[in-house]
Amino acid sequence: MRKGEITRRGIIRKAAPIFNQKGYEGAALSELMEATGLEKGGIYRHFQSKQQLAAEAFDYAWATAVSTRLEGTEQIANAVDRLKQIVWNFRDRREGLVPGGCPLLNTAIDTDDGNPVLRGKARRALARWIERLEAIVAEGQEKGEIEADVDAREVAMLIVSGLEGGLMMSRLQKKDEAIKLACRHLEEYLETKVRAAASEATKRGKNS
Amino acid sequence: MRKGEITRRGIIRKAAPIFNQKGYEGAALSELMEATGLEKGGIYRHFQSKQQLAAEAFDYAWATAVSTRLEGTEQIANAVDRLKQIVWNFRDRREGLVPGGCPLLNTAIDTDDGNPVLRGKARRALARWIERLEAIVAEGQEKGEIEADVDAREVAMLIVSGLEGGLMMSRLQKKDEAIKLACRHLEEYLETKVRAAASEATKRGKNS
Repeated sequence: MRKGEITRRGIIRKAAPIFNQKGYEGAALSELMEATGLEKGGIYRHFQSKQQLAAEAFDYAWATAVSTRLEGTEQIANAVDRLKQIVWNFRDRREGLVPGGCPLLNTAIDTDDGNPVLRGKARRALARWIERLEAIVAEGQEKGEIEADVDAREVAMLIVSGLEGGLMMSRLQKKDEAIKLACRHLEEYLETKVRAAASEATKRGKNS
Repeated sequence: MRKGEITRRGIIRKAAPIFNQKGYEGAALSELMEATGLEKGGIYRHFQSKQQLAAEAFDYAWATAVSTRLEGTEQIANAVDRLKQIVWNFRDRREGLVPGGCPLLNTAIDTDDGNPVLRGKARRALARWIERLEAIVAEGQEKGEIEADVDAREVAMLIVSGLEGGLMMSRLQKKDEAIKLACRHLEEYLETKVRAAASEATKRGKNS
């Protein structure tokens, strides 16, 4: 990797927690300079604008969040079990994330009434995240693990909104109660409304 | 009402949409001046600081949200029906609100990593909102309308987190899909897990 590219990536990595914690407006140049150890010119040699830096910081924070949430799930054969592990990862694996909470939730609220570039990033990230979960549901339906009559997109959206709502409350309360509760509720939903009854029967059949 | 008090309330009312849409850092003095038609000195004659104005603007926006969400619910006798109406109000009655979305969600995310005064306001508002819903559940349990073994606080928290998560997604997508889905899910939850089976039997008994 070229030296310029190394510096560039370092700036993104160090700027990401500031944007994720303070929001776009709240992220002061002085803090970005302190975190990166660079002068203004040193930062903006690599980025056209604050908005471009913020957009790349979002991409970095979001990519980290997605890979953390999917960690160890791809090898889980059953689709419902895979979705449950994603829910648990959301609740439990918050150490590897960029500090400041879910980048999607933060950027959604932060850019709600302005900042179209960042807003577009967040909207596309949400769309892809929903599609990803939806694909797991669809795969589970093809394999008979998930009820044929559930709507894959609805399942995906309920998982995302349930988790984000619980996380928002937990962050405000500085307690895990809400996110734990949201996860328990989603688990029950996945077990009772999403998992195919036949799949359970098949499993029992195989084990007996 | 004294003239000073009228001016003061006018400032709060006009500043509230700016803080709710732009956040604390994003709300520029120039915008506050334009919205209120006052000079800096004219605003700060009535408030000690930007933080004090923001805090009162939050109180105003939140009081509006709570009264809108409870509108027409107090006269509903059955506790489950009352909770369902609150869920519907959250989804449908967004016209009377201070522009910019749910003040609680906005302030929670905006003050997540700073601004302890506003953060404290939001935390207490959330606590009281949960207590309010919890009291409806508890009342329903006393009257036999709600299953005795559900946890009133859990029901209250799931309603709040389900709605806020759905709203966050809907605002990002600029579509009602997510909030409508979250409401439908909560309705089903209230009907199948919260409403007392006996209460349904009683109703049928009364109607026959």
